[in-house]
Amino acid sequence: MASTQGLEGVVAAETDLSLVDGQKGYLVYRGHWARDLATTYTFEEVAHLLWYGYLPSEADLEALRAEFIQNRTLPEYVAKIIDELPADFDMMSVLRTAVSALGVDSPWPPTQAQAIRFTAIMPTIIAHRYARLQNRTPVKPNPDLSHTANYLYMLNDGKVPSDNHVRALEAYLIITMEHGMNASTFTARVVTSTQSDMASALAGAIGTMKGPLHGGAPSEVMTMLEEIGSPENIEPWLRKELDEGKRLMGFGHRVYKTRDPRAVALRAVVEQMEQRDEWFDLSVMVEDAAVRLLQEYKPGRNLYANVEYWAAAVLRTVQIPKELYTPTFTASRTVGWTANILEQAAHNRLIRPQSTYVGPMPEESGVYNTTK
Amino acid sequence: MASTQGLEGVVAAETDLSLVDGQKGYLVYRGHWARDLATTYTFEEVAHLLWYGYLPSEADLEALRAEFIQNRTLPEYVAKIIDELPADFDMMSVLRTAVSALGVDSPWPPTQAQAIRFTAIMPTIIAHRYARLQNRTPVKPNPDLSHTANYLYMLNDGKVPSDNHVRALEAYLIITMEHGMNASTFTARVVTSTQSDMASALAGAIGTMKGPLHGGAPSEVMTMLEEIGSPENIEPWLRKELDEGKRLMGFGHRVYKTRDPRAVALRAVVEQMEQRDEWFDLSVMVEDAAVRLLQEYKPGRNLYANVEYWAAAVLRTVQIPKELYTPTFTASRTVGWTANILEQAAHNRLIRPQSTYVGPMPEESGVYNTTK
Repeated sequence: MASTQGLEGVVAAETDLSLVDGQKGYLVYRGHWARDLATTYTFEEVAHLLWYGYLPSEADLEALRAEFIQNRTLPEYVAKIIDELPADFDMMSVLRTAVSALGVDSPWPPTQAQAIRFTAIMPTIIAHRYARLQNRTPVKPNPDLSHTANYLYMLNDGKVPSDNHVRALEAYLIITMEHGMNASTFTARVVTSTQSDMASALAGAIGTMKGPLHGGAPSEVMTMLEEIGSPENIEPWLRKELDEGKRLMGFGHRVYKTRDPRAVALRAVVEQMEQRDEWFDLSVMVEDAAVRLLQEYKPGRNLYANVEYWAAAVLRTVQIPKELYTPTFTASRTVGWTANILEQAAHNRLIRPQSTYVGPMPEESGVYNTTK
Repeated sequence: MASTQGLEGVVAAETDLSLVDGQKGYLVYRGHWARDLATTYTFEEVAHLLWYGYLPSEADLEALRAEFIQNRTLPEYVAKIIDELPADFDMMSVLRTAVSALGVDSPWPPTQAQAIRFTAIMPTIIAHRYARLQNRTPVKPNPDLSHTANYLYMLNDGKVPSDNHVRALEAYLIITMEHGMNASTFTARVVTSTQSDMASALAGAIGTMKGPLHGGAPSEVMTMLEEIGSPENIEPWLRKELDEGKRLMGFGHRVYKTRDPRAVALRAVVEQMEQRDEWFDLSVMVEDAAVRLLQEYKPGRNLYANVEYWAAAVLRTVQIPKELYTPTFTASRTVGWTANILEQAAHNRLIRPQSTYVGPMPEESGVYNTTK
């Protein structure tokens, strides 16, 4: 009997959805390089690939876009529930509660229609709550805009975003949609394995993503870049941290031992933008300097910028506020979670490991089971 | 690398909380026979044992009772949220949403105070919603009553329950508090392992319990007993089912290969009750006949009444309606979940197994990671 606290190295599922190969720096979604998908396809197209197994035809895509638009609007009772939550409730707890309150019409089996419904509404929940926190009236979804453009539109009080910003955010959302068997995806699968419903699995996954050991800390990367502030400060600031033995936020990854393909994709997308901003140029310079200095201070460790580093750069560029970084990640990962829920349900088997009791035993074991 | 879909035989944690030995028919909570705890202690005492590791002193118990009473009342905003949920929302989805809406004041580490808070309020959530569904005004918790007595009091529109009923329900609640590494407990541990909060872990656990492969079907046992109806129908009814090759609901268990110690304890408690009812006597006769006939039809299989069988008998005796069986189980298991959350947090390590990608590979692997 294998005893593996943390379940490292234990394979809990076979999947058609994604390959994460940290040695080679590969990230594959259903036979496609995630990097290529992020730079050349739309959110709706890649979601279709993950849910249905293939990129959509023109007709598929038209139908899917219409379904997204139909499902964007918050039911009135859910809006009221969001508004009842205390003002100091963090956004991840708001998402968890709203998804639980949405529920599902039909509990088993989970369906692609349900996957679309939850994915389509996630940005509306975030934007609704964010508007309330800013004492604004929430903006209704705009049916003329794509999933990604509409998210920025709702966040920015009804201002239609630039194509550049939409493209950069879309690349971020696509590249973070799915990533093998992480803890939140695993939770979604365990919940589903009892034949529970998609709302339950997603509430569990959101609650798991909320933990700082999972959701990561792109906002700490932001803080670092803000402290550096200008090009001449880069090297002194980084050297000071490294001399003090501190970790640089946004560099190195548990799995990827070469460049994080998600970071590569995001940097490529923003480099292709016609309008670049100073802050983005600073991010490029900090990355290059940090990689050089990390080779000097920690030779052989091969530390590169990870997805959190470039997530911070992209999200800052498209002006999403820091407190919405993890919720925005949640909105994209909903595609991967729902795809995993559908896959788990299609080949279902209860996920139920064991525990070993290491506490004391009572006396009189012999007579325990004699009473009828 | 072990590949074990379902994770059977994989040990995911060491625990001091409970031992389930299906071969011997043992169920132990922290060094005590669960059967003895169920028949001789109160809900609050056994919860104290699971959370703190020892049975309470007089002073401990007085303090714990006071804390339970303090934490029973539903915050007004949570009551409003429950009332906003659609009338056809099932009770497990109501519990999941209410627990998520309650949230926690301090996300990490989880505390015993939080465990008490969630455990104390669970019956109030159920009773509040149940009253609304019956177009009654919810009854406020009664501070003169114990946790178990107050649950029956609130469900029965403010009628103080008999000691017999309190004792029988208390035995049920205690014997179902904790049961090794089941799927919902595992979910609670996975969520906690990311350093997420207790509300997230419990919302995930409730969502897992909601699945029919986990929460079980005591209400199907009820239906069977109702169909049998009277002693002279027992043997003909059972023989007809067995002749048609059907499974008898409430007999046999995945883990227990001898008598389910929970069934033994519950039968013993109700047998000791001074006032017995016809329905309970019928349950005893059906069990005895079914065990005898199962030995005749399926020799060597050793099928006995399981906890669901006696859960149905007890819950029917104390007049809890069928649709509240799984929610009532949830209210008791909240003690085990929160004890597991506290244990996981005390020795925390991220729980993150792997998946194996079995989909196709893209072309041009060689040039994948050359773009900077």
